[in-house]
Amino acid sequence: MRVDGKHYRTIWLAADGTSVEIIDQTLLPHRFSTSTLSSVSDAARAIRSMQVRGAPLIGAAAAYGVALAMREDPSDEALDRACDMLLKTRPTGVNLRWALEEMRGHVRDLPRGERVEAAYSRAADICDQDVAINDAIGTHGLPLLREIAGRKKPGAALNVLTHCNAGWLATVDWGTALAPVYKGHDAGMDIHVWVDETRPRNQGMSLTAWELRQHGVKHTVVADNTAGHLMQSGLVDLCIVGSDRTTATGDVCNKIGTYLVALAAKDNGVPFYVGLPSPTIDWSVRDGLKEIPIEQRSGEELSRISGRLGDGTVVTVDLAPEGSAMANYAFDVTPSRLVVALVTERGVCPATAKGLEKLFPERAAQKATS
Amino acid sequence: MRVDGKHYRTIWLAADGTSVEIIDQTLLPHRFSTSTLSSVSDAARAIRSMQVRGAPLIGAAAAYGVALAMREDPSDEALDRACDMLLKTRPTGVNLRWALEEMRGHVRDLPRGERVEAAYSRAADICDQDVAINDAIGTHGLPLLREIAGRKKPGAALNVLTHCNAGWLATVDWGTALAPVYKGHDAGMDIHVWVDETRPRNQGMSLTAWELRQHGVKHTVVADNTAGHLMQSGLVDLCIVGSDRTTATGDVCNKIGTYLVALAAKDNGVPFYVGLPSPTIDWSVRDGLKEIPIEQRSGEELSRISGRLGDGTVVTVDLAPEGSAMANYAFDVTPSRLVVALVTERGVCPATAKGLEKLFPERAAQKATS
Repeated sequence: MRVDGKHYRTIWLAADGTSVEIIDQTLLPHRFSTSTLSSVSDAARAIRSMQVRGAPLIGAAAAYGVALAMREDPSDEALDRACDMLLKTRPTGVNLRWALEEMRGHVRDLPRGERVEAAYSRAADICDQDVAINDAIGTHGLPLLREIAGRKKPGAALNVLTHCNAGWLATVDWGTALAPVYKGHDAGMDIHVWVDETRPRNQGMSLTAWELRQHGVKHTVVADNTAGHLMQSGLVDLCIVGSDRTTATGDVCNKIGTYLVALAAKDNGVPFYVGLPSPTIDWSVRDGLKEIPIEQRSGEELSRISGRLGDGTVVTVDLAPEGSAMANYAFDVTPSRLVVALVTERGVCPATAKGLEKLFPERAAQKATS
Repeated sequence: MRVDGKHYRTIWLAADGTSVEIIDQTLLPHRFSTSTLSSVSDAARAIRSMQVRGAPLIGAAAAYGVALAMREDPSDEALDRACDMLLKTRPTGVNLRWALEEMRGHVRDLPRGERVEAAYSRAADICDQDVAINDAIGTHGLPLLREIAGRKKPGAALNVLTHCNAGWLATVDWGTALAPVYKGHDAGMDIHVWVDETRPRNQGMSLTAWELRQHGVKHTVVADNTAGHLMQSGLVDLCIVGSDRTTATGDVCNKIGTYLVALAAKDNGVPFYVGLPSPTIDWSVRDGLKEIPIEQRSGEELSRISGRLGDGTVVTVDLAPEGSAMANYAFDVTPSRLVVALVTERGVCPATAKGLEKLFPERAAQKATS
């Protein structure tokens, strides 16, 4: 998508052909800046510090992390070490594990001399595949938006509510939940997006608002607390969010607060959709509430925040009373019963085991034989 | 309640016997400071700028505002002007209107020479009455806490979740929702409070956490988004919140996001209580969703925030991308069907017209004859 009119992905191979460039998302929305990853430790740090975030982009960054590791040392031990280190950076998303398994599977049976090139090539494929997947999510999701827009009064904008950032900054390009929104906007639809601020890391206000603005999509930022009131007031036509991990039964683990949005949608008859690439599906998990570990992050993400002073300097300030404890759960699980449909690169399906298996029959077959 | 070990109310008559002192809540949690109101304009400004906030405290401040106005000019015109000016400061709460009607009713039939003293005396009564009401809410709410605590394993703390600030800072003393918590804590119960941050103005993190800490009650601040996950995980035994306006049918208009907490409580079988003094009941309203106007405040409350730099200086920073629109709805309405019980100064009742009328039969009688 576009930044100041120029096309960007969120991650790409540097001009030197070995380092990897990323958009440093911790500096947004205050400053647009790229950062160079030269080693697997750089890649791990970028994921851990959330310079790159969003399940698909984490997978892509981890893939390039393995390639950087192979360049330093193409041994089996180095491959295992790199995968272990990268896997530990974030516990919740499943793309990370998927991407590392892809990389390991692709590299481990090759002679050492071929591993570096193969790793870079597979990492590039994973990135291109993510772009293709998200493009397809956009294509499959767009008719849902058109159908709901078609029921509105002529001239009324379609009001979409989203939580966190499942836009192009969360992926290599296009975004997952926002891909249908971008497709609709590009096709001339009148779309307005309610952007949940998404505390505590403010990915909605900092990233979603920023990327929608760069692309020229109408939007309004609201406090997360506002979703229910907007829906009670008829101001939301549909909700669409991303997913960090989707169970084989359609439960959706996504940014903390997603479950509350889904409850409000259900209570007000507003359709709640999830846009997700199939690598976020964890076919091994059937009960999201019981089986998915929820990452707890530092309380400082809640009690401290960065912002711009009047002169443009970016500073970090303390918000909380000294001595009060903070808890920071990063994700929650939205039970499938609250999800109207899943929008994947293969098409749209109900949030059920049957729905998913129909779209991904090879997985159902795999399960039957395992 | 106590600040640094010394007893305070949130509003009191100054040593000069005419000015009014308040705790400036816009400076919390960074600095504890009091401010002097010397005129009705001062009082209106203090309410509008939220130096004083919380429905009961707004009522008390408005009452003293009328007294200050009478001291400047005890004419009928000045009385009307003062009441009009004060009524316009905040649109949602009903205590404000109630307090102004009390003051006007008490003063208007008196000769001018008696008005000043009568106004100060009635304002002081309104403050004392608020303290007595909240004390009674605490007494009536405590058995609910004890009952739920009694069902827990011995030695396990009772986990209470609250939203916004309905503690003593929202009232003259004790608080509404938090009065039972303070009563329980003072009686030696082991209580832990989950404090919703309460965006966009952060009253939970800034005020509730601060006042609980000053009083020594265990608490943990969480992002508003976390309430659902905590309840899904069995980490909340009950929710209790305040109310800015309660309808005759038990709908509760309270800080934006309260409705989402109530939805999560319902979905997880967690009892959701509302602590409210009867002056917040609007007997004229039957449908909260249709009839209560929701205050929209400046988007800057969302996009700008104050915090402490490392050296203790308090600065305000911009959080949002330049040019993104912000919307800031201050309240939402929780339908009575989500409320397990209302805790008032007269006792506990179901959130229904019948329940309220049984506790306040004089209102039911009034309605029947009107």
